Amino acid sequence: MTTPTRRDLANAIRFLAIDAVQAANSGHPGMPMGMADIAEVLWNDFYQHNPGNPQWADRDRFVLSNGHGSMLQYALLHLSGYDLSIDDLKAFRQLDSKTPGHPENFMTPGIETTTGPLGQGLANAVGFALAEKLLAQRYNRDGLDIVDHRTWVFMGDGCLMEGISHEAASLAGTWGLGKLVAFWDDNHISIDGNTDGWFTDDTPKRFEAYGWNVVRGVDGHDPVEIRTAIETALKSQDKPTLICCRTTIGFGSPNKAGKESSHGAPLGKDEVQATREALGWTHGAFEVPQEIYAGWRARDLAAAESAWDARFAAYKAAHPQAAAEFERRMAGELPAAFDADADAYIAKLQADGPTVASRKASQMAIEAFAPLLPELVGGSADLAHSNLTLWKGSKSVASNDPNANYIYSGVREFGMTAISNGLALHGGFIPYDATFLVFSDYARNAVRMSALMGVRAIHVYTHDSIGLGEDGPTHQPIEHLASLRYIPDNDVWRPCDAVESAVSWKAAIERADGPSCLVFSRQNLPHQARNDAQVADIARGGYVLKDSVGTPEIILIATGSEVGLAMQAAERLGKHVRVVSMPSTDVFDRQDAAYREAVLPKAVRKRVAIEAGVSDFWRKYVGLDGAVVGIDTFGASAPIEALMPHFGFTVDKVVAAAQSL
Amino acid sequence: MTTPTRRDLANAIRFLAIDAVQAANSGHPGMPMGMADIAEVLWNDFYQHNPGNPQWADRDRFVLSNGHGSMLQYALLHLSGYDLSIDDLKAFRQLDSKTPGHPENFMTPGIETTTGPLGQGLANAVGFALAEKLLAQRYNRDGLDIVDHRTWVFMGDGCLMEGISHEAASLAGTWGLGKLVAFWDDNHISIDGNTDGWFTDDTPKRFEAYGWNVVRGVDGHDPVEIRTAIETALKSQDKPTLICCRTTIGFGSPNKAGKESSHGAPLGKDEVQATREALGWTHGAFEVPQEIYAGWRARDLAAAESAWDARFAAYKAAHPQAAAEFERRMAGELPAAFDADADAYIAKLQADGPTVASRKASQMAIEAFAPLLPELVGGSADLAHSNLTLWKGSKSVASNDPNANYIYSGVREFGMTAISNGLALHGGFIPYDATFLVFSDYARNAVRMSALMGVRAIHVYTHDSIGLGEDGPTHQPIEHLASLRYIPDNDVWRPCDAVESAVSWKAAIERADGPSCLVFSRQNLPHQARNDAQVADIARGGYVLKDSVGTPEIILIATGSEVGLAMQAAERLGKHVRVVSMPSTDVFDRQDAAYREAVLPKAVRKRVAIEAGVSDFWRKYVGLDGAVVGIDTFGASAPIEALMPHFGFTVDKVVAAAQSL
Repeated sequence: MTTPTRRDLANAIRFLAIDAVQAANSGHPGMPMGMADIAEVLWNDFYQHNPGNPQWADRDRFVLSNGHGSMLQYALLHLSGYDLSIDDLKAFRQLDSKTPGHPENFMTPGIETTTGPLGQGLANAVGFALAEKLLAQRYNRDGLDIVDHRTWVFMGDGCLMEGISHEAASLAGTWGLGKLVAFWDDNHISIDGNTDGWFTDDTPKRFEAYGWNVVRGVDGHDPVEIRTAIETALKSQDKPTLICCRTTIGFGSPNKAGKESSHGAPLGKDEVQATREALGWTHGAFEVPQEIYAGWRARDLAAAESAWDARFAAYKAAHPQAAAEFERRMAGELPAAFDADADAYIAKLQADGPTVASRKASQMAIEAFAPLLPELVGGSADLAHSNLTLWKGSKSVASNDPNANYIYSGVREFGMTAISNGLALHGGFIPYDATFLVFSDYARNAVRMSALMGVRAIHVYTHDSIGLGEDGPTHQPIEHLASLRYIPDNDVWRPCDAVESAVSWKAAIERADGPSCLVFSRQNLPHQARNDAQVADIARGGYVLKDSVGTPEIILIATGSEVGLAMQAAERLGKHVRVVSMPSTDVFDRQDAAYREAVLPKAVRKRVAIEAGVSDFWRKYVGLDGAVVGIDTFGASAPIEALMPHFGFTVDKVVAAAQSL
Repeated sequence: MTTPTRRDLANAIRFLAIDAVQAANSGHPGMPMGMADIAEVLWNDFYQHNPGNPQWADRDRFVLSNGHGSMLQYALLHLSGYDLSIDDLKAFRQLDSKTPGHPENFMTPGIETTTGPLGQGLANAVGFALAEKLLAQRYNRDGLDIVDHRTWVFMGDGCLMEGISHEAASLAGTWGLGKLVAFWDDNHISIDGNTDGWFTDDTPKRFEAYGWNVVRGVDGHDPVEIRTAIETALKSQDKPTLICCRTTIGFGSPNKAGKESSHGAPLGKDEVQATREALGWTHGAFEVPQEIYAGWRARDLAAAESAWDARFAAYKAAHPQAAAEFERRMAGELPAAFDADADAYIAKLQADGPTVASRKASQMAIEAFAPLLPELVGGSADLAHSNLTLWKGSKSVASNDPNANYIYSGVREFGMTAISNGLALHGGFIPYDATFLVFSDYARNAVRMSALMGVRAIHVYTHDSIGLGEDGPTHQPIEHLASLRYIPDNDVWRPCDAVESAVSWKAAIERADGPSCLVFSRQNLPHQARNDAQVADIARGGYVLKDSVGTPEIILIATGSEVGLAMQAAERLGKHVRVVSMPSTDVFDRQDAAYREAVLPKAVRKRVAIEAGVSDFWRKYVGLDGAVVGIDTFGASAPIEALMPHFGFTVDKVVAAAQSL
């Protein structure tokens, strides 16, 4: 081979994808074959990165929102020199390999976010681009732009059909994220076939309606047109850009190009051979000639980071404090004093003993902690004054203020949450978002993705039970606490008073490797007395709030607004009753066996759980012999004073449940 | 008062809303005050209904997608003569009243759908309009249009920010639903204030991009402009219409009009008085003069139905069979032979004993039942060949075929599911929809709404566990079975073979008052032997599939793909072991105590539950002393043969768990 053409370089992607899918006997060759030319131009001519250091702070971010085309991304990483070998590619879709079926940020160097659930990658990308904008406006000084990178997204028709694409694109337009560039793989095919029957949007017009810069009609197989389109995008200052690329799914396959049959299954041995012949690719399976590697590594790929290193050194000399803060944030470290400052705040709260709604306590915690944490950025889905997410230092991220930190998400729960994931993944931020607990449903898969990706995102959910009152059953969560707790690696907190609320915020902020859902009440909750050891044990998720005299005969276990009820019931039941406050079952379950036994001794089987949510969840603590005071029907519209007795949340009912054992 | 003006008629809405919110000390006056003029023109000049018979089949459907403005709808129903008294309005937001905080279809005559969770009302409305189109093209004959009504939607900025508005509007455009008319309450205010900061879409342009007919710039307080706009909408044959109405939230309130302060709280006593003066409304709280009532009832509101009755009589004479089918469908009744035919199919399956994936068994059930049920309409979110939702008689609803019954939803899980709800609520349809189980997350609140509203919607979820293999953790459900079961009034089925799959379909079709989630495997599942009594007991949700000799010492409880594992383990464990197949915990829990005791005797505490989902859910059956073989982490990308042993789903593991008790 002489000097490879651009098409040759792109074909290397195609055949790595074709061969890997064929070897795995599973996967999606069509998209990598269709988008290979676009990817080749982007990565070889524009993409700012250093394969030797996938963690470089100022690298561009690449998001494959149509994540089923994972082999395209693995091929890019391999060809450009990331730590992803040809053997890794051969292990595509095998257990523990670095090349799982969909891109997973925690498995593979160079993968920025986990994709596959369609549309979320685009929203993650909006989060990345927002992160860049906010860091740039806070840290760049005097021509020393230490933050100056782009976010690139590939997305297919599926992403664009999903509702979240609307939410994310709308916010990107409103925020004017000029460094966000999305490529639409306009191949007119989705899994069910030709999209004429179910996707007739005028997508360019739709994105113009969001205030995007739209480049129409690009031939996605013509490197010159692709280059020109990207150059147009680079000129866009304050609008994100959509590049509409007409492509052929399965490009190069004589019998499957342009057809859904190339989408989600191996081409088959004969068709692989036919495609090799059609595209003139004479190399064997997984064979990439040196000239091709050379073409993919022709640029000095370390140069951009080297230049940045020099720039950052100058910056550090001129602005040592800002540089230190930037480095701390990008490392995901909290300020050294945070832990002690937070504990001092919590101790003071315990001493002051305010009786407030836990949503108010949440706002007080934000007010206390946010000034310590410039990385704390967040807001609410148009419920700021209900979720109580605003604090004195809040400044809209739509502004150019260096302290911009507040996200007015509008009524876009799913987009908001996936944008949080993007902010967290970018680095430099601890995002929080908020809505009513019942509307966590709208965002649910993004919460799951927070947990799967292990990102520090804080999801604030207020109005946490039928206790919200008159808005009625559409707004009253029943199954939500249990359902969120069942998401693996997700920590759910439902605090019973201001002190537990502050502890939950501290725990969420300190939890570097996963999300937390903080669940708060609309109504006031009474302060609970605690000694220092009890205050310390809140962080263990469950603890003895009021102990029995001697071995407990009965244990009442409660969370949130029902802890006060349990305390009153215990008062009536007598000295042999222990009350356990269990703000986080997830955290409690992680404690060592000795601690759990100390709180819930195996021998004590007379247990009553009390929570204004589905009762069956609590069988894991009370077993078949205990009782649960819960709610297993939908709620109703009425004032809280009528609802709580109507649904059985009274001291009498708890006492009766305990006495029935 | 002399003859009331249109403004007077509209003001009756305003003050009923103002007074009711004030009396409840809770609610949303701003929207009814803003949209009163639009509502007045629509209802008095165009809306086709009969307040005396809210169930008339050919009535128009009205959907308040911005459901927080519920008092607008209650005022409309009251003023036009529905069975909703002034005392009912005075009981706004009180326990058991007919006027809950948000419109609830099961509480109030004339309320077509339950709204409040934003954006879903619009999607329900698309379902209503699709229902009308499908019924019209099947039943209308020879100028006898027995189906000819419109669907009208009110929606606010919040609905339009939600992603589901994108999904629903896109499908409505593709399907050319010309009888769908949506009014956008363009008041530029959402809860957080002026929408400039978070909602800058060019909404008219966006809807044009969906192929809608858009009427721009209507003064939503000018009855003439409103009339003209509606007349324009009526001319649209094959495009849905968006009427963009500029309005003032809290119209008439001297100090709160145009401000978010009028949105979600009572105006306050003084401001109520000031508004009375500003609008010249001299009547006391909840007082409506007779002239106003007369104005609202000036049309002969029974006339439309009377005319239809005559038309239907003629139709019935000419087309008795079609008329009978139409009446049966609108009454929600199944064909008389369905039950027996379905049982015969099930009996044959038990005799044949096919070993297939349960998703394949689902398709076989559709193939068997759909020819009996012209009301069965549904499809998949672009996964037809994975969900196996197509059958021989499938014809796209985008066509004008009288037998059109298949919905190509595209990748729009949430919109698809809320459209199912609309189809079911309209009457005449049993809708089904489908996606991968993990993506039930995307649709989750619409599934909840199915259950809350008590509609017969069938949600099909395939690829139900890590057993799906290589697609990896983004596609592998873990917490989903438990989370769906926890939704009140939702029946979840996870069948273990083709026979249970057919029974689950039959149960879902026969369940007139609520939704069912049918959960199926990607992989083959072995047929299980059963006698007739066992076949009959499948419908009870849980039953003894293999009994012990004598009183069981150990009970293995399993669902779906793990039933085969349990049977193998039982073989190894010996004759003292009972195996319970539990395809639906929801249905089993509704059985009488004697049946439940017969299946799971209280005295037998050595119980092992086996399911490829979160383990804690099963504590409700195995208690603290039993064991669960489940999965509490995310899955992984690998072939099923590697995954199942990796995550402990082996006969050895089940045997060990049983022996450890």
